[in-house]
Amino acid sequence: MSNNPVIFRNAELNDLPLLVAMLADDELGREREKWTDPLPHSYHEAFAAIQRDQNNELVVACKDEKICGMLQLTFIPYLTYQGGWRCTIEGVRTSSNERGKGLGTLMLNWAIDRARERGCHVVQLTTDKKRLDAIRFYEALGFTASHEGMKLHL
Amino acid sequence: MSNNPVIFRNAELNDLPLLVAMLADDELGREREKWTDPLPHSYHEAFAAIQRDQNNELVVACKDEKICGMLQLTFIPYLTYQGGWRCTIEGVRTSSNERGKGLGTLMLNWAIDRARERGCHVVQLTTDKKRLDAIRFYEALGFTASHEGMKLHL
Repeated sequence: MSNNPVIFRNAELNDLPLLVAMLADDELGREREKWTDPLPHSYHEAFAAIQRDQNNELVVACKDEKICGMLQLTFIPYLTYQGGWRCTIEGVRTSSNERGKGLGTLMLNWAIDRARERGCHVVQLTTDKKRLDAIRFYEALGFTASHEGMKLHL
Repeated sequence: MSNNPVIFRNAELNDLPLLVAMLADDELGREREKWTDPLPHSYHEAFAAIQRDQNNELVVACKDEKICGMLQLTFIPYLTYQGGWRCTIEGVRTSSNERGKGLGTLMLNWAIDRARERGCHVVQLTTDKKRLDAIRFYEALGFTASHEGMKLHL
């Protein structure tokens, strides 16, 4: 990673094609996503739903004004833990030419700070058990794999 | 479980003390929650935040007009999976005199139907790896423990 600073900002509609490309450029993502021109309308609908929800933030990391990473934060109020808010992180991706250079750590630390700023007491995420590198990466950041992440596809 | 029908409805402010009591009446919950009279204000704040967020639903299961179970659903729009919505289930509890009688299955099936109704393609939850019965329970309902559920307490 060059020494140029990484800037974080909310994603904008113009970024959407690049974000979908980034989601598709991934071992598991390439089978799930559909990066066409024009993009499937469902991506636009999801983007709009995220934008109008103040408890969801789709964030991009930029270097030299170019997007090099993305993630989505969801802030959730729960009764548990005496009415504590949690932050869920999802859809973490870095552009392929930035991998292994510390950008992921920078992004996650930024996300953890943002969760603190929003008053959350827990930051949580699930990661596919097949993503062994990702699990090690999150553990190095202080996350504990204390829970089973259970999914049911409808 | 008696044959009387189980009715599902959104939780109301009057239910709050009972809901906190239910959260505290649990192996892990008793150390986390604070069931006092009056309740800590933080529960009221969380309840209000849930009520005003159309993507969060705090639901109670009632039999003979008495609450016998609770859970919280969060509907989250994501770009991943071509802009798919997911439903996260959290804070599932049943009253102690109803355990092992099929109420949990009824509640989860209701939640899965609700997620379908809201257009979700995945229902997900995390459960502490110490809750072995819970893991078996969710697997019997069709959930797969495909992910690590990673937590970082701030």
